[in-house]
Amino acid sequence: MQFKNDLFLRAFTDETLPRAPLWLMRQAGRYLPEYRQSRSKFPSFMDACRSSDFCVEVMLQPLARYPLDAAILFSDILTIPDAMNLGLTFGVGEGPRFASPLRDETTIRALRAPDLSSLHYVFDAVSACKRALIDDGVARVPLIGFAGSPFTLACYMIEGAGSSSEFAAVRKMMFQRPDLLKRVLEINTACVIDYLEQQARSGADVLMIFDSWGGVLSPSQYEKFSLTSLQQIASALKQRLPNTPLICFSKGAAQSFSSQAQASVDGLGVDWQSDLSQVRTQVGERITLQGNFDPAICATDAESVRQHVLERWRGFNPNRRYVANLGHGITPDASPELVGALVEAVRKISEKTLDKP
Amino acid sequence: MQFKNDLFLRAFTDETLPRAPLWLMRQAGRYLPEYRQSRSKFPSFMDACRSSDFCVEVMLQPLARYPLDAAILFSDILTIPDAMNLGLTFGVGEGPRFASPLRDETTIRALRAPDLSSLHYVFDAVSACKRALIDDGVARVPLIGFAGSPFTLACYMIEGAGSSSEFAAVRKMMFQRPDLLKRVLEINTACVIDYLEQQARSGADVLMIFDSWGGVLSPSQYEKFSLTSLQQIASALKQRLPNTPLICFSKGAAQSFSSQAQASVDGLGVDWQSDLSQVRTQVGERITLQGNFDPAICATDAESVRQHVLERWRGFNPNRRYVANLGHGITPDASPELVGALVEAVRKISEKTLDKP
Repeated sequence: MQFKNDLFLRAFTDETLPRAPLWLMRQAGRYLPEYRQSRSKFPSFMDACRSSDFCVEVMLQPLARYPLDAAILFSDILTIPDAMNLGLTFGVGEGPRFASPLRDETTIRALRAPDLSSLHYVFDAVSACKRALIDDGVARVPLIGFAGSPFTLACYMIEGAGSSSEFAAVRKMMFQRPDLLKRVLEINTACVIDYLEQQARSGADVLMIFDSWGGVLSPSQYEKFSLTSLQQIASALKQRLPNTPLICFSKGAAQSFSSQAQASVDGLGVDWQSDLSQVRTQVGERITLQGNFDPAICATDAESVRQHVLERWRGFNPNRRYVANLGHGITPDASPELVGALVEAVRKISEKTLDKP
Repeated sequence: MQFKNDLFLRAFTDETLPRAPLWLMRQAGRYLPEYRQSRSKFPSFMDACRSSDFCVEVMLQPLARYPLDAAILFSDILTIPDAMNLGLTFGVGEGPRFASPLRDETTIRALRAPDLSSLHYVFDAVSACKRALIDDGVARVPLIGFAGSPFTLACYMIEGAGSSSEFAAVRKMMFQRPDLLKRVLEINTACVIDYLEQQARSGADVLMIFDSWGGVLSPSQYEKFSLTSLQQIASALKQRLPNTPLICFSKGAAQSFSSQAQASVDGLGVDWQSDLSQVRTQVGERITLQGNFDPAICATDAESVRQHVLERWRGFNPNRRYVANLGHGITPDASPELVGALVEAVRKISEKTLDKP
């Protein structure tokens, strides 16, 4: 595949880049009026995810506004458990909720990986997004496909809802029935591998795993209950798709960066509570880091945005093995103008960094 | 002061102890039926906190059930902002809420440290608790006094409520008006110093700072917006009360353990997402660590509890500069029987650890 702009892909090589590539988690989202407009035509969030036209439309919206270096599939991390018929719904103003959570041995023994064909709408959306990015055989920017991590999916599947109790039911199961949790993780892992592979075969150029709840694990628990799955995914995908970079983002898991570095992934997401230069020291020079501006910065002012970029890059080289991004998704109260200011600051400052002797 | 059991105090010396001292965050709390019974007599949580009789009664309840090595004042971390007249209430099933949060320059410029006399009910409660612990001039166990950290208090004061948005208003102020945030921190810091000193003068033997929201800060932000205050508190108290150990617990701030070690406090709390042995390596041998059993363990079974204690202490010496505790407060769904099992496991296993050659 040829790219008009392949800066993002080159961040996974040892090359020193002319500037830091940039995309933004949840770049297609509620902070954009045009997104809210498009989204309002669908009764539910999952209905919207099932429409390839919608996915293409909103995937392109941020690219029309900002010179971003990657596009990302519009979808949800819970498509897999949704396909397992656990009764996923998104309440108004609430997070996701499963009507049939996996709370006991019987429901867990009955759990089966879904047939990939039930997720064809996702692969269709990937293909449609890819087609929309290609002009005359050349893709505008690389397309990112993604999945939830096996552990994070298990959190929702077992707890039934995103939870202020920090997934106490999952932690209880981890202590009392680690065998049951591991069974859920095994099923999820096998499914995530095939799911990500199919996204790549449908056109995704880079794959990303969102491990949103890896932060509820201590480092030794992380190694047992998340890293093992990540290693299996990384190793299977490396075999099947040797040229497709894989990024993992474990939110709130600063305690586990050294473990994350063992996952054999190509890139690690860094949340806004960490310092990039410290993480670089912890994980070494060979892993691409992605992050970690504070999403709250997009509701401040242009000068604060610029200062924030400078501060986050202090003692850190943004032109090598690095992808500029937020340290979590853009929030609905972000100002589209300030998102523009962030894009500009990242470009200008990282271009300048390179000029330094 | 003489103590019948001074094991907790000796954890702040270089001595190797016959077993690990133990107390439990929120040991007087809703998991105990006798607590719920006592609490039901008061219309609001702050009303209960204002009754010395209630404070003494519930402070003693866990000591009557379990052979714990410390008592802790029953109070709240928000007594200081409450005394600043910001309109604190606790909604049913909700966290705290301030009617008049500090959102702009005018309200912040008008903020004043409260007169300590408005907090006399806290010092009265400390004195009453201390008297209740003394028999024939000898105190049963040491008494812990506490305060919220200046940063954590500022989070509530600025945001107005504990928040799922991880204190976005505070983070915005940190970026746009760090001078205003620092002013709030300075007022809080001066007040926390006098408040903790007065608790010690009223009978508290050990002081603790709860920095419940230090985890929303990156290490460099932690150094600027939390560590400075902690260092000022530690240095002032060391001068005024050279023999009173000071513990700081920054929840969810694994990324900042190296910074926390610079605070010159005697002890650091370790949350349940961290590994004790790794934290020991990060902070060195001179600081007492306190933690870090997962509160979810108290809703499992006795064998899981025992395994958890063994697992948490793997590669860690629990008999020197260590206080056994949970890595966060006991949850309301904890089983009083399993709390007993935890107490027993901690005693038995740490006694055994000592016997090892």
